[in-house]
Amino acid sequence: MLPMKIRIAQNAGFCYGVRRAIKIADEALEKNKSIYSLGPIIHNPQVVSEYEKKGLKVVESIDEAKNAILIRSHGIPPQIYKLINKKKLECIDATCPFVKEAQDYAKQLYEEGYFVVIIGDKNHPEVQAHIAYANYQAQVINSKEEAKNIQAQKIGVVSQTTQSVDNFVSIVSELVKKAKEIRIFNTICDATEKRQESAKELAQISDIMIVIGGKNSANTRKLFEICLNFCKKVYYIETKEELKKEWFYNVKNVGITAGASTPSWLIDDVIQAIESIDNDIH
Amino acid sequence: MLPMKIRIAQNAGFCYGVRRAIKIADEALEKNKSIYSLGPIIHNPQVVSEYEKKGLKVVESIDEAKNAILIRSHGIPPQIYKLINKKKLECIDATCPFVKEAQDYAKQLYEEGYFVVIIGDKNHPEVQAHIAYANYQAQVINSKEEAKNIQAQKIGVVSQTTQSVDNFVSIVSELVKKAKEIRIFNTICDATEKRQESAKELAQISDIMIVIGGKNSANTRKLFEICLNFCKKVYYIETKEELKKEWFYNVKNVGITAGASTPSWLIDDVIQAIESIDNDIH
Ligand code: F3S
Ligand code: F3S
Repeated sequence: MLPMKIRIAQNAGFCYGVRRAIKIADEALEKNKSIYSLGPIIHNPQVVSEYEKKGLKVVESIDEAKNAILIRSHGIPPQIYKLINKKKLECIDATCPFVKEAQDYAKQLYEEGYFVVIIGDKNHPEVQAHIAYANYQAQVINSKEEAKNIQAQKIGVVSQTTQSVDNFVSIVSELVKKAKEIRIFNTICDATEKRQESAKELAQISDIMIVIGGKNSANTRKLFEICLNFCKKVYYIETKEELKKEWFYNVKNVGITAGASTPSWLIDDVIQAIESIDNDIH
Repeated sequence: MLPMKIRIAQNAGFCYGVRRAIKIADEALEKNKSIYSLGPIIHNPQVVSEYEKKGLKVVESIDEAKNAILIRSHGIPPQIYKLINKKKLECIDATCPFVKEAQDYAKQLYEEGYFVVIIGDKNHPEVQAHIAYANYQAQVINSKEEAKNIQAQKIGVVSQTTQSVDNFVSIVSELVKKAKEIRIFNTICDATEKRQESAKELAQISDIMIVIGGKNSANTRKLFEICLNFCKKVYYIETKEELKKEWFYNVKNVGITAGASTPSWLIDDVIQAIESIDNDIH
């Protein structure tokens, strides 16, 4: 029997902004033995503890930081930059350029006199920064119902980058009825959508799909559900240890995808483990 | 038996912009024996022929005009103003201020680098002027399907003033998906909606509704249909001659409304005729 063909979905795992942040952290850690990260660099405990060993210490506020501080992809309010300056800390800024763009739009809309509406989750750090860029005058909403309560003649809209297009459009169509002028910056990043699209495509040509990610990661669960619609055998694992030999009997095409906070070395580990199963059984 | 109570719907007949245009024409005709109108002042043959007698002559182009030219509520392209200047004609401008506002937005969006989208009927004179204000670079669309074909990073939207809110919102929600930035000026005038709302309210408390307007007037037919939903006896007439005595037997509350191009004297004629029927039968 032929060996299995293992394919990894395009856009599996980290998005551009997170990969970039990790790279910036790596480069900084080469020069600097001890760096402080304002909040965890990504929502993955393995990655965080690995980086802690390399010298990246997670802090909750600037007060706890010394020497150098890393800003993760979600960005921070402009006031925090001032604090960093004041404390004369080196600022290693890994804010995702797409997030930065949304911040700039929030600021511009506020300055041009728009009533700023941010579509997203008001507790998310990215959105917290957007609010700050709109001089704390922004209204955060996440549903059509909340949109109904907005009253303004000149509305400016930005979105949390991970917002779903459908929810965004449905909220905007409500807002359009409320204002004389509405100016919308569609700041949705297509990383999530592309990851899901690629998973779907790969699931259609695979005999088995392995979805890698934290069991409590909402975006990984979504990937798993999408794959289930297009492939008969789909398994959801956190690490290679959960793989089972018998899954791969009579399998020719293996597809792999991973959630947004799954690092590439974790994906590589899984691939190697599957290859050795392949050698074993075929 | 008590005499009938006759009520006229609020916002029946002419909208603000048409009433204003008529007033401007009246004032101009007091000073000036002969004025030219670029297209009929409103879409009502009785009114047009009445004004023709007063000295308002309808022409299709500036070339046919002498002395003074009247611009009706729909407005005209900026190039026509230049021609009027060049021909040294007196310009009596009755462009509706709400239409003017939409023209200004179309111009502004074009100048600020937006791909201008006009939601409306591309053959309507109002829309023709909007296109000209966007330096003839605008795309006119009237449905969600047409919106799907638009590709631009920076879209600016204005609407024909008589567009329906529902169609506007449905088109805009399609456009939102297409652009990085979309700036929408909701230039829908609420005259039509208000006229319909008032007709509905009055129909609910009337034993009979008389709807006055040209038989081929789309907006009058719409009023008629709305009234039918809320009142058992609804009649659609063009002039008082069509009224029938027997409609008013056992009737206490008479409601009257009229389409957008029905002049008030025509409404007054109908009211007087109904009053004399009332005297006759009660
Ligand atoms: S952090 Fe990632 S999800 Fe998009 S906005 Fe930046 S690439
Ligand atoms: S002409 Fe009439 S319909 Fe509105 S835009 Fe002006 S009031």
